[in-house]
Amino acid sequence: MTDRYASFVQSAAGRALVKRLGLPDPPRLRRHQPGDPLLPAPALVGAATGGRLAEPVGKILTAAGVELADPAATTTAAARFGALVYDATGITDSTGLRQLYDFFHPHARSLVPSGRVVVLGTPPAECDSPREATAQRALEGLTRSIGKEFGRGVTAQLVYVTRDGDAGTLTSLDATLRFLLSGRSAYVSGQVIRVGTGPATAPADWDRPLDGQVVLVTGAARGIGAALARVLARDGAQVVALDVPAAGDALAAVANEIGGTAVQLDLTAPDAPTRLADHLAGRHGRVDVVVHNAGITRDKTLGRMDADRWDQVIDVNLSSQERINDVLLERELIPAGGRLVSVSSIAGIAGNRGQTNYATSKAGVIGLVDSLAPVLRERGISLNAVAPGFIETRLTARIPLVVREAGRRMNSMAQGGLPVDVAETIGWLAWPASAALTGNVVRVCGQSLLGA
Amino acid sequence: MTDRYASFVQSAAGRALVKRLGLPDPPRLRRHQPGDPLLPAPALVGAATGGRLAEPVGKILTAAGVELADPAATTTAAARFGALVYDATGITDSTGLRQLYDFFHPHARSLVPSGRVVVLGTPPAECDSPREATAQRALEGLTRSIGKEFGRGVTAQLVYVTRDGDAGTLTSLDATLRFLLSGRSAYVSGQVIRVGTGPATAPADWDRPLDGQVVLVTGAARGIGAALARVLARDGAQVVALDVPAAGDALAAVANEIGGTAVQLDLTAPDAPTRLADHLAGRHGRVDVVVHNAGITRDKTLGRMDADRWDQVIDVNLSSQERINDVLLERELIPAGGRLVSVSSIAGIAGNRGQTNYATSKAGVIGLVDSLAPVLRERGISLNAVAPGFIETRLTARIPLVVREAGRRMNSMAQGGLPVDVAETIGWLAWPASAALTGNVVRVCGQSLLGA
Repeated sequence: MTDRYASFVQSAAGRALVKRLGLPDPPRLRRHQPGDPLLPAPALVGAATGGRLAEPVGKILTAAGVELADPAATTTAAARFGALVYDATGITDSTGLRQLYDFFHPHARSLVPSGRVVVLGTPPAECDSPREATAQRALEGLTRSIGKEFGRGVTAQLVYVTRDGDAGTLTSLDATLRFLLSGRSAYVSGQVIRVGTGPATAPADWDRPLDGQVVLVTGAARGIGAALARVLARDGAQVVALDVPAAGDALAAVANEIGGTAVQLDLTAPDAPTRLADHLAGRHGRVDVVVHNAGITRDKTLGRMDADRWDQVIDVNLSSQERINDVLLERELIPAGGRLVSVSSIAGIAGNRGQTNYATSKAGVIGLVDSLAPVLRERGISLNAVAPGFIETRLTARIPLVVREAGRRMNSMAQGGLPVDVAETIGWLAWPASAALTGNVVRVCGQSLLGA
Repeated sequence: MTDRYASFVQSAAGRALVKRLGLPDPPRLRRHQPGDPLLPAPALVGAATGGRLAEPVGKILTAAGVELADPAATTTAAARFGALVYDATGITDSTGLRQLYDFFHPHARSLVPSGRVVVLGTPPAECDSPREATAQRALEGLTRSIGKEFGRGVTAQLVYVTRDGDAGTLTSLDATLRFLLSGRSAYVSGQVIRVGTGPATAPADWDRPLDGQVVLVTGAARGIGAALARVLARDGAQVVALDVPAAGDALAAVANEIGGTAVQLDLTAPDAPTRLADHLAGRHGRVDVVVHNAGITRDKTLGRMDADRWDQVIDVNLSSQERINDVLLERELIPAGGRLVSVSSIAGIAGNRGQTNYATSKAGVIGLVDSLAPVLRERGISLNAVAPGFIETRLTARIPLVVREAGRRMNSMAQGGLPVDVAETIGWLAWPASAALTGNVVRVCGQSLLGA
């Protein structure tokens, strides 16, 4: 669970050696602490001619306490920015992409460590012409390249904001910028995030963005689930922590620590959905957010895999989510404005040797998001997923050294993520302020090289 | 341009050493030669209960000369198949995914080298319920994992076939199966291909699938473009080979070799689209297929990149394609049933350090396919792209050794592809029989680990 190489690299002796030999150089990532400002340095905001988002974004950032740099005073090499935020919605043709170069070229080396690049665009499908859609889609090539190029813990994202926004759109854009600029998104890079419409509401206090929300977390006894329970509670949620009876002690410890409640339940039992619904109805009368985090691996190559390994993985990771969703939705326990977050995996995107069962289940989770999100939108409920990459847990600690080192270094951060990184990302998607985000699959992988 | 390591591995001494040390073991890939049968061994065809494609697929394969294995007689370990083809359209729920295990588990080690796995599904967006869409989307996790797991040059693909097919649908499914099973698709794996509707027509002779077609190839003087001109001519096309005047000699050599015509033109010149249209109108009266292959790189990190490098790459790789399409379409030189094929890149999908300009242009090409394909469909014209990964060319031969070796080995084939692999893939998309394929972006990358 410790990345000894990263610790070594951050020592004085380590730094010297890494420089001399050209070894991977994992930076210390800026992570969120309650009370931190969003950024450690001013943000520079730019816009292509005719952009529609620079003005609202400027207001959002100012209200969030971010200092905006004066573009006129930034030509000195000494300028150091916390973030470069660019409104590219004004680009309507590939020839207009030149404006990206004009903004980013002079500032490419001006970001602080763990600085942020955010490019805002219009969803290609909403564009007026193929030319405009082509140019807007091209933005993805830029942000993904910047994520790989800038280094030092800098992240780069593309945020597509619907043109046909409602009141919730700007609130969710606000939530998204707060997530992306802050240390909460330390291990999220190279992502494309879509902000649509929905019943998003800003919190009274952005330091407690989940105040009063009832949040169910499955698989909460350890690893990512336990980190998630802590993050959600820190942010104001009433956490219902669920895990199998065999993990009862660990689960109780987590629940006690955060002042939440513990539910011991095997989600694959035929009566589990009903029992869970009964519990939530009786205790809280509702559940505002459901996080389907419970998951298992049973790795074997397909030729050597027994049928139980296949069945268990599909059942725990996918089918049980579907059964629980159906019962909770049917009994209307998830109110309008409610949110579902599922945990997929990079293996569900790229496939993996020895994980035909796991990758099938996690690709299914993406299918669940794609297909159920439009249906739930009608009820004001959002559904998103996160797809973790290499995260330092009990499970990854058991991977053989060479494979583990490759997994750790093959991403733009040159290190594995922490459970808290996945937890913060799920937390953001769970905020009432994020209700205009739906149908997203956000990777938490440090921009892993691995992909589809 | 030579992969010396792969040659060494395929020698007797090399084989012994590779085995002893556990080094990467690039297999010799089966590539297409005119007159070859589609498969070197029988295909085993299976289907989930209620599948709608097993029967037409059986007919297609039989007509194509593929021997179908008797499922009842295949339980011996000695059985060796050329392909495993599975109709998964009958799977309507995640619990039904078990049928995949039941088919593939006993045969996971029964494929010949360069064997083929093809799974057929229903496009998730067309499914009747979220449960069905989820299960159909899950197929992608299986095929991508199989591609990484089976090794020995075996490829694995997922083909989504529209439920609302027309006469062209089965013709294009036929074309797609002929491509995927044959050695033409040697370096294509882990892909998702969508067969829709359109004016597809089967050729009189499947060994000359482009007979009589007028095909324009840009950037035809060398590398992928020259290989493409040869493949298209071999398959019966009248090739119009285009390149810049500076490459005139190489271009003339290619054109002479294949009995095509050469056009010297700088595509970024303001009058290039008109001059090209005039040439095609005067000489052929039409152009059935346009392949936008011309492309350049001008690599630098964004902070060190001068504006010319940005502008040239965007203009050659993206904007000039748009201008040419507009003029050819406006003058109706591309008839109904015509096809456009653009060349994107894995860098356009995943981004790349030092290639912000190139990746932006190649992501734009994907945007062009996404946005223009629905418009052209109305006119009976299809538009697809290929995205090459590591292909052995003059350009890659110049990459420093360690980076080059990493690029070569980090894919399911443990080797770089050849220009002919990209050419065969473009060729397939150019066939009149493929007209019901549109809006696809097909990677030719040996299932590179690199992704988005």
